[in-house]
Amino acid sequence: MAQARIGLIGLGTMGAALALNIAEKGFPIAVWNRTTAVTRAFAAGAGALAERIVPTETLADLVAAIAPPRAIILMVPAGQAVDDQLAALAPLLDADDLVIDAGNADFHDTSRRNAAGLPFRFLGMGVSGGEEGARHGPAIMGGGDVADWARVADVMTAIAARAEDGTPCAARMGDAGAGHFVKMVHNGIEYADMQMIAEVYGLLRDGMGLDAAAISRTFAAWNEGALKSYLIEISAIVTAAADPHTGRPMVDMILDRAGQKGTGRWTAIEAQHLSAPIPVIEAAVMARNVSARLDERLAGQALFGPAPQPCALAPDTLELALIAGKILCYAQGFAMIRAASERFGWTLDLPEIARVWRAGCIIRSAMLNDMAAALAADPSRNLIMAPFFADLIETAMPALRQVVSQGAAAGHALPALASGLMWFDGMRTGRGTANLIQAQRDFFGAHGFQRIDGLDDPHGPWAGTV
Amino acid sequence: MAQARIGLIGLGTMGAALALNIAEKGFPIAVWNRTTAVTRAFAAGAGALAERIVPTETLADLVAAIAPPRAIILMVPAGQAVDDQLAALAPLLDADDLVIDAGNADFHDTSRRNAAGLPFRFLGMGVSGGEEGARHGPAIMGGGDVADWARVADVMTAIAARAEDGTPCAARMGDAGAGHFVKMVHNGIEYADMQMIAEVYGLLRDGMGLDAAAISRTFAAWNEGALKSYLIEISAIVTAAADPHTGRPMVDMILDRAGQKGTGRWTAIEAQHLSAPIPVIEAAVMARNVSARLDERLAGQALFGPAPQPCALAPDTLELALIAGKILCYAQGFAMIRAASERFGWTLDLPEIARVWRAGCIIRSAMLNDMAAALAADPSRNLIMAPFFADLIETAMPALRQVVSQGAAAGHALPALASGLMWFDGMRTGRGTANLIQAQRDFFGAHGFQRIDGLDDPHGPWAGTV
Repeated sequence: MAQARIGLIGLGTMGAALALNIAEKGFPIAVWNRTTAVTRAFAAGAGALAERIVPTETLADLVAAIAPPRAIILMVPAGQAVDDQLAALAPLLDADDLVIDAGNADFHDTSRRNAAGLPFRFLGMGVSGGEEGARHGPAIMGGGDVADWARVADVMTAIAARAEDGTPCAARMGDAGAGHFVKMVHNGIEYADMQMIAEVYGLLRDGMGLDAAAISRTFAAWNEGALKSYLIEISAIVTAAADPHTGRPMVDMILDRAGQKGTGRWTAIEAQHLSAPIPVIEAAVMARNVSARLDERLAGQALFGPAPQPCALAPDTLELALIAGKILCYAQGFAMIRAASERFGWTLDLPEIARVWRAGCIIRSAMLNDMAAALAADPSRNLIMAPFFADLIETAMPALRQVVSQGAAAGHALPALASGLMWFDGMRTGRGTANLIQAQRDFFGAHGFQRIDGLDDPHGPWAGTV
Repeated sequence: MAQARIGLIGLGTMGAALALNIAEKGFPIAVWNRTTAVTRAFAAGAGALAERIVPTETLADLVAAIAPPRAIILMVPAGQAVDDQLAALAPLLDADDLVIDAGNADFHDTSRRNAAGLPFRFLGMGVSGGEEGARHGPAIMGGGDVADWARVADVMTAIAARAEDGTPCAARMGDAGAGHFVKMVHNGIEYADMQMIAEVYGLLRDGMGLDAAAISRTFAAWNEGALKSYLIEISAIVTAAADPHTGRPMVDMILDRAGQKGTGRWTAIEAQHLSAPIPVIEAAVMARNVSARLDERLAGQALFGPAPQPCALAPDTLELALIAGKILCYAQGFAMIRAASERFGWTLDLPEIARVWRAGCIIRSAMLNDMAAALAADPSRNLIMAPFFADLIETAMPALRQVVSQGAAAGHALPALASGLMWFDGMRTGRGTANLIQAQRDFFGAHGFQRIDGLDDPHGPWAGTV
């Protein structure tokens, strides 16, 4: 075999899937894993694809197996392992070789590594879609210099998922850090999408008394309309599944204690740094933290329960409420991306991001087509102001308002849906209530305020009287 | 004059007020400011207190003016200025001299400075109460070694505010960093208290159509009951004040665009790191960020308005809702402090923190007496589970539920009150909806779940079928 087109380090679940995907698309690939047995097992299990896979047993062998100027994908655990691997590669690579961190890095780390003056070229790359996506078509969010991305764009577009119109879901988002940043926001939105679905699930189950099978049919029906998406699709699938041990619905046997790997939290933290409100994502992270406190919840139920109470809401109302909540959540997410683009000087292409998310990743959905179109028409405009979504909001918002209002009255925990509604109502109130906050702040701290009449007198008559 | 009991660096608003307070309580104090003219003007304006004030014009003079082992309070802007000042002091001080950073430091910086091995003793100290508090009695939250705190406890307890029972509101919270941490959470709660008052103000103004004078009377009446607090008191004062330019109510002339200095954001970020849900504080920070987007809000009003609509709620209902919201917010804040205490090994004394907050600081209130008692009875229990507050919640929660439900229906932005309610409903739901989230996560990422029957089979029947 001639030298490989590309290399890959780290044959864990994601790395192995990505390597097979690359080989399948016709690119010879050299692979290396810290544990040689893993490399051998991978090559032995690659079937017909093995002819395009070069297993190597030392880093030097890996480097030698790749055609220069080399491109090497890192798929190792985020954090110190990446720094260690970069250090190990440094003496082996030429200045025009390219290393691509495709792991789940904190984008600050990616920016830091890039700024540290590595002795080779460097890209950060967010890859979304789990093992299935990595194997058969993920969404790929690249970050780094245009020329560096161009060198591997053929591979990345070949292995990426394709939107319904055939466009590959792989693009350069911006400078180093931008790819992992966009991936992080993707994950935050994923938290929020899942939480809003779970809240509506609770209203179907506890408010309307539907069993899992009926809930599954509801989700399946919604997947034919505006909510068409991977997460609604799999919600229909998992609610239809039976537990092999008891024969009962699988979801009814699963403990309501959600785990998290931290990217939702990262998104919430970064939004705070950017002063970019993403209350739906914050509520989703909060809900996972509350779910983890099972003992406290059981004590709370004993003391303040039972909760929640029946609450009759038409499925169509719930569907519209979810549509509204989803639009609000994405509007917040894109506004956060816009804020980051300005803060970091990234000139992120918002419609391109929406296009990349249309397939391959967990939040892929039909609505992202419309979002891409709306953002392309005016990327600086908040998504809720785009005519298509403004119309949809006019239609759907009364349902969200009804769901939050009635759900709150009946004791249903709807933090994400309620946060979306409250943000929206704040964003459509020209005269809010922060004037009182400004009066208080001026009273106790002489912080000053602006006046509605533009007069330059920033303190109240209480000034100096305290 | 004999050598001074203590020194102070930085004669800005807060530093000057603190120095006068110290002198007034009988302690000779040496002061120094980077700009000598400021020092001279301060001493010249100190009146009778000048006899206990030693103005100095060099750092060396300052150090020489203080009786060893010395104690010096730093009151300079947080950040680099503190590091610069510590570096400047290093060659002048002995190993048993003590520097006290009483500024608004990020507690991580305080911990870092302490761990860096300064060539003198070091305390971090949160001071709350604004200029008025600093001058006549702030709440003081110290952090550092027990022995170092003991050396200045006489000064700190003398200058601190006193609770109604006469206890000084000054205490050591824990190790270095702990004082500034507790001060940070205080400020986060301050954001939340102010936001919830503003939300209720909006319901009084826009929902019930009350004018500022009637709203002022309502706040004044509430200040006689369970809500008795500085922030309710000043809300009554500022809503009663007339604008000298127009004669109209002052609050009606103030623009509804709130500023912030960042400590609310810090609290939200740290809560994320601690996985400690503080949704009411998060909502308050969010609301300030939304308030700042006035142009977008006006566009939103034009497109989706008018908002909000009339909404008839009895003042007693609003009072109870605010009581409920306040309890929930403090329960979250104290739970966050508990989480930090465990994470950082601080053994923070929660009832002591509640006691220190009873006077001098912005969030001082009658209810903190009851919180101190409830936390003293069982510091490990969530505040909402303490019998006194559980009873109050039983009484007040229907009002909060009604306010959120009806306010949401009428289009009022009530993010903090709604976030409190949704957190509470999550915390009293023994069987929530995170089981669906766990099913989804297992479906797309094989993340696994626990089962309600304890059986060890962490994957659904969809495993391997993806």
